[in-house]
Amino acid sequence: MTETRTLTLNEIEDLSFRALVAAGTSPENARPLAVATAATEADGVASHGLAYIPIYCEHVQCGKVDGLAKPVMTRPKSGVVTVDAATGFAHSAIDLGYETLITAAREQGVAVLSICNSYNCGVLGYHTYRLAQAGLVGLGFTNAPASIAPSGGAKPVVGTNPFSVAVPGTDGQPALLIDQSASTIAKSEVMKHAREGRPIPVGWALDSEGNPTTDPNVGLKGSMAPSGGYKGVGVALLTEVMAAALTGATLGINASPFSGTAGGPPKTGQFFIAIDPVATSSSGGFAQGIEELVDAIRSQDDAHLPGDGRRAKRVASATQGVAVNIATLEKIEAILG
Amino acid sequence: MTETRTLTLNEIEDLSFRALVAAGTSPENARPLAVATAATEADGVASHGLAYIPIYCEHVQCGKVDGLAKPVMTRPKSGVVTVDAATGFAHSAIDLGYETLITAAREQGVAVLSICNSYNCGVLGYHTYRLAQAGLVGLGFTNAPASIAPSGGAKPVVGTNPFSVAVPGTDGQPALLIDQSASTIAKSEVMKHAREGRPIPVGWALDSEGNPTTDPNVGLKGSMAPSGGYKGVGVALLTEVMAAALTGATLGINASPFSGTAGGPPKTGQFFIAIDPVATSSSGGFAQGIEELVDAIRSQDDAHLPGDGRRAKRVASATQGVAVNIATLEKIEAILG
Repeated sequence: MTETRTLTLNEIEDLSFRALVAAGTSPENARPLAVATAATEADGVASHGLAYIPIYCEHVQCGKVDGLAKPVMTRPKSGVVTVDAATGFAHSAIDLGYETLITAAREQGVAVLSICNSYNCGVLGYHTYRLAQAGLVGLGFTNAPASIAPSGGAKPVVGTNPFSVAVPGTDGQPALLIDQSASTIAKSEVMKHAREGRPIPVGWALDSEGNPTTDPNVGLKGSMAPSGGYKGVGVALLTEVMAAALTGATLGINASPFSGTAGGPPKTGQFFIAIDPVATSSSGGFAQGIEELVDAIRSQDDAHLPGDGRRAKRVASATQGVAVNIATLEKIEAILG
Repeated sequence: MTETRTLTLNEIEDLSFRALVAAGTSPENARPLAVATAATEADGVASHGLAYIPIYCEHVQCGKVDGLAKPVMTRPKSGVVTVDAATGFAHSAIDLGYETLITAAREQGVAVLSICNSYNCGVLGYHTYRLAQAGLVGLGFTNAPASIAPSGGAKPVVGTNPFSVAVPGTDGQPALLIDQSASTIAKSEVMKHAREGRPIPVGWALDSEGNPTTDPNVGLKGSMAPSGGYKGVGVALLTEVMAAALTGATLGINASPFSGTAGGPPKTGQFFIAIDPVATSSSGGFAQGIEELVDAIRSQDDAHLPGDGRRAKRVASATQGVAVNIATLEKIEAILG
């Protein structure tokens, strides 16, 4: 059994902030990442919460991310906000552009935020969630080092590239939040099986010739299986077009790994589209349509509405805090010295 | 063997136009649909080409679509073009908004076209293709009567809801064109197996309790299997949010069927996002990124680049025409009287 200690969300944010600063991150860059880490733990996505803090700190120290980066915002057209993350954390780059994105989307009905020279943005749905909180439909895309091969090929050309969509609800929470990668399973699961010396199920990964494998190490040298075959490749390509090509960021085929210390900054990208649903549904049917759609799912026993799991955890965490892995806390305390 | 006759693209357009008008469609509404029908045959997507003309004509005659509709465009915000298709054909509604959409996207860097009270738009990629020809990245969504159940449920809540993305190339043709539905297989394939009395493979459709079935009739009364399980449901929900909720169109759960003559107009929706890639990639890396991505796929033997199949057919059809099913031609000639 994993030993845990229960922390409040404030304690998680504070701990994350202090560790990032101790590792050499500027307070301006550490704060948005610390806030996101607490929100991620609140949502129950432990894999991307505090467990990532020691990795982020290591990446600041080895230069894979510039903890002191000063992202630069420009606005080439009225509907376009671009941010050069300057090889710093994605979170501060996104934060820099968000207010302008939201204002532009409200004024014009739609606006985009295009981020290059960036880094792993953690849970993508955290960022689209904030657009939904502002009453906008938020679409998000983020690319990753290549690990999925094209249909008929065997050499990876695109990452597990997630997309996310968050839909505003009537209670300040998203009515619907989808956040899914293009692969059958997260690459981190294959890496975990490799570390533990356990075989992986058929359908998770392919060898370097594109054949199914149950050996996680063979799979990591080959490629990740796309969800639903060629349609998963299509989703990964959609995300690559949006997050890498449209932003002018580094393609997955050229990006350095998100894990480990080698290769320098990945310089990958993020792309967000914010849409004002009141403007687009001139008949005013948006809120009613979403309510009916959500009801059609919730009214079926055991049917799963994307985002409901995270929402339930979020509500509970606000009052009960989050049980955090002691081993992770010890790593973070070592950074704090 | 199917008997065919080879027609030029002009002949296909002309034949489509005359049949639609003979059935009671106004020339203004018949023309964009006839042009799209020829382009669809040129791309080799015979299932959505001339074969649909008798169905369109029947739908005009039974009132499922209003052949004389006059779609209405409004522009509630600078980045938003809305069109009420007035229960007419989707093609004329899209045509009405396209020029304004393209101009707005070029001026502001991004714009959207939101269409309600619409109908089956045929091949979605035909419409995004035109945005790519204008030098824009085109994203498209269109919803359909519900046929996919939520994860954990068994009752359909969303259609096979495709999305499409078209990426401008340097030769006036899209460099990449993705157009895929959220189901494992097209519903029309299951219907075809039912007509022919053949079993369907496991994984295509589910019975009304959500269990796998090989009986196409049972599957048609149950639900279509989402591609890649819950991730296919996520893609279908994304499209439902964009094409139905954002537009104020009818949800898939309330829409009348696209086939047959019952139920009146489906009043479904389409949503398009047009993005200026020069504005969003301030470093100017867009064209180079797409070229590298496309090369990484084409350089692998047998690897499949989405859109390449249609492109090759299109090039051949321009000079060689298209072999068309004689039985379809006879149906159309009967309409012409």
